[in-house]
Amino acid sequence: MARSWLDIDPSSDFSLANIPFGIISTPDDPSPHVGIAIGTYVLDLKILASQIGAENLLPDAAQSQTDVFAQPTLNAFAELGRPVHRHVRSQIQHLLSKDTTRPELLKNNVELREKALVPQQRVQMHLPMSIGDYTDFYAGYHHAYAVGVMFRGPQNALQPNYTHLPVGYHGRASSIVVSGTPVRRPVGQILLDPKAEPKQPTVASSRRLDIELELGCFITKSNALGQPVSIGEAEEHVFGYVLLNDWSARDIQTWEYVPLGPFNGKNFATTISPWVVLADALEPFRVKGIENSTPVQEYLKEKKEETVYDIQLEVDLTTPEGNTTTITKTSGKNLMWSFPQMIAHHTLGGCPLRSGDLLGSGTISGPVPEQSGSLLELSEGGKREIQLNGGTESRTFLKDGDTVTLRGFCVGKEGERVGFGECTGRVQG
Amino acid sequence: MARSWLDIDPSSDFSLANIPFGIISTPDDPSPHVGIAIGTYVLDLKILASQIGAENLLPDAAQSQTDVFAQPTLNAFAELGRPVHRHVRSQIQHLLSKDTTRPELLKNNVELREKALVPQQRVQMHLPMSIGDYTDFYAGYHHAYAVGVMFRGPQNALQPNYTHLPVGYHGRASSIVVSGTPVRRPVGQILLDPKAEPKQPTVASSRRLDIELELGCFITKSNALGQPVSIGEAEEHVFGYVLLNDWSARDIQTWEYVPLGPFNGKNFATTISPWVVLADALEPFRVKGIENSTPVQEYLKEKKEETVYDIQLEVDLTTPEGNTTTITKTSGKNLMWSFPQMIAHHTLGGCPLRSGDLLGSGTISGPVPEQSGSLLELSEGGKREIQLNGGTESRTFLKDGDTVTLRGFCVGKEGERVGFGECTGRVQG
Ligand SMILES: [Ca+2]
Ligand SMILES: [Ca+2]
Ligand SMILES: [Mg+2]
Ligand SMILES: [Mg+2]
Ligand code: NI
Repeated sequence: MARSWLDIDPSSDFSLANIPFGIISTPDDPSPHVGIAIGTYVLDLKILASQIGAENLLPDAAQSQTDVFAQPTLNAFAELGRPVHRHVRSQIQHLLSKDTTRPELLKNNVELREKALVPQQRVQMHLPMSIGDYTDFYAGYHHAYAVGVMFRGPQNALQPNYTHLPVGYHGRASSIVVSGTPVRRPVGQILLDPKAEPKQPTVASSRRLDIELELGCFITKSNALGQPVSIGEAEEHVFGYVLLNDWSARDIQTWEYVPLGPFNGKNFATTISPWVVLADALEPFRVKGIENSTPVQEYLKEKKEETVYDIQLEVDLTTPEGNTTTITKTSGKNLMWSFPQMIAHHTLGGCPLRSGDLLGSGTISGPVPEQSGSLLELSEGGKREIQLNGGTESRTFLKDGDTVTLRGFCVGKEGERVGFGECTGRVQG
Repeated sequence: MARSWLDIDPSSDFSLANIPFGIISTPDDPSPHVGIAIGTYVLDLKILASQIGAENLLPDAAQSQTDVFAQPTLNAFAELGRPVHRHVRSQIQHLLSKDTTRPELLKNNVELREKALVPQQRVQMHLPMSIGDYTDFYAGYHHAYAVGVMFRGPQNALQPNYTHLPVGYHGRASSIVVSGTPVRRPVGQILLDPKAEPKQPTVASSRRLDIELELGCFITKSNALGQPVSIGEAEEHVFGYVLLNDWSARDIQTWEYVPLGPFNGKNFATTISPWVVLADALEPFRVKGIENSTPVQEYLKEKKEETVYDIQLEVDLTTPEGNTTTITKTSGKNLMWSFPQMIAHHTLGGCPLRSGDLLGSGTISGPVPEQSGSLLELSEGGKREIQLNGGTESRTFLKDGDTVTLRGFCVGKEGERVGFGECTGRVQG
């Protein structure tokens, strides 16, 4: 892997091997537009594209498209397709490489460097895409099993369909927010005494506010209504990945979710990280997912064996007083279904996925309880206190003022790090 | 009610009392823009607004907004709010009235009439709004009960939450299509032998393709994330109504829907009628809904007793040979929850509804089986043949080549008719 002429700390998520795309606004240009993250900087692609010329950034066929970097979302860029993303990422890597063959473009162009490279703390991040539809899957087998036991007992923990298809449901696009957005604790109908008959709900603030550690996948190439995407084509429909926190009010969810699925227990906020890590940047980190002993249908069969990514995932909980505890560590490999399988299944009946649509993986938990991606699991349904650092405080579910931060990164063979940055949100009462 | 100088058949859905809004394209102007339906004509508001001046169409505060009629969706017009819609509808009614005080504007302006009034058969209709999110409720009590019996038996037909809150789930916005769009029979996982153990799904075209007769409600005024809409304010958030056919593949749905709700069984197509009937046009037709003997929470209590509309609803099934049978007749009053209640519940936890978002009522069935809004009910779960006209053909579920047409209309005290036109789709194999 080449090194950059920029000084990049080895612990940075944004190495030269990454080059994630996001929507930024800067003090000099407050209208949202496109940038990439590199080390502690953002490289402003709107400025760069206007200065170095399209021929140094875009492939021949897309050189009229420099205005995609001036757009307030990544949708137009995503629609150009993966070969274009691959080219642009590679060009940016060359420009930022110590041994670039065109140092005059950026490396030695002090004026452009000063304009186009902005320290990240001076940049505001926005939602990366205009999200038409959001679907949340349930591919984290260990989570599905553990939660199934709590909701329905060990006999019915997993429904018979679970190993035959990637179970998913339609989520709410309007409440997807970018990392840093405060999350209001939702009011809803809850059963204070679930055993009393007749059942009598109360309207109150959720007492069981939880997180779900997930990966989000953005769609790049649309399929038309009635035109399924085959499993072989599915990867070409992936733009890239983000971290996703599917905030969940367990008490609201428990009362409302039969028979049509989660609703107000999930639609008050879903937080995503601002930088979209391109699918290509994760290629070196492919691994096998959780084995499925059930033979799957032809339309779900993948040629590759390594269909998920070994992304190291962590969740920090920071109390209102500023005490931070890493409450879980797991890996993105803990999925029984891959995103290409989700895409093939989602479109099997002809449902159109559009550029900018978001798929959630489902909560990612490891095989042992300490690797759980939700407080519901970590606290065993609220029965066990999760000890925080220092030993004086604990949690079952979230308190007002708590901040939850997801992190995710891969480390390559030469130490190059490909990470997502933070996906964070603070609970407001 | 005033009469129009246009010759309007009394059986037309588009009387002077209606004035529904839609997105049209015409031979002279193929880029989608705004029109209203009147009798057998469309009045092109893009042309009208440019010719008669904003002061004759829009209220003072909105007179800079004539470009809303040149937009390819109704979202910008909807965002102006109900007082503006009320003013514009009333101005159009005056212009089209026999006794208009400004006949020079349109009635006697032959040149403008020839340009702005286009016969409906020369007009192409488009989706009326850009739909950010679509939510389907389940407020048709008779349907929920009848289907609950089939899926879960009479003991568990309705979940205990049913009478406490308007149950709903997030639907798929990307597959909402305008009336007339062909509907591809979906392929999906189905259990050919549901009783065999272990359960073994097959991938095949749905054998149980069904319809759901629903009303759709478009949102006009957005609420911010974290800001619930109170039941008292909810009506001001309604733009208007359409007919909605929630095509459903029952065999796919049955296998996939536990535990997270319907997915591929519903996301292959949802058809809506093209004309949005403004909330004001339905005001005269308010009636009481289905009584709910459970005391509801304060946030769901309405001041008005008459919270739903007595819309006469009918469904026609036309065979590939052109034989048409009206398979059901029911009324929009057969709802246990009103749209304002759905809005208050949907936003209770802070979920933002945006202008252009769509809410479905849930399938509307009357109290007796012949008034059912789905084939699932009419055929008693596929066990009974529904006889078609002529007596030689019958259906349980839909065959390839069948066309399903929903119709809906109200008839006022003086015979004035406020209707939706058609919501139609033909099944393709
Ligand atoms: Ca989830
Ligand atoms: Ca429905
Ligand atoms: Mg969520
Ligand atoms: Mg549908
Ligand atoms: Ni290298």
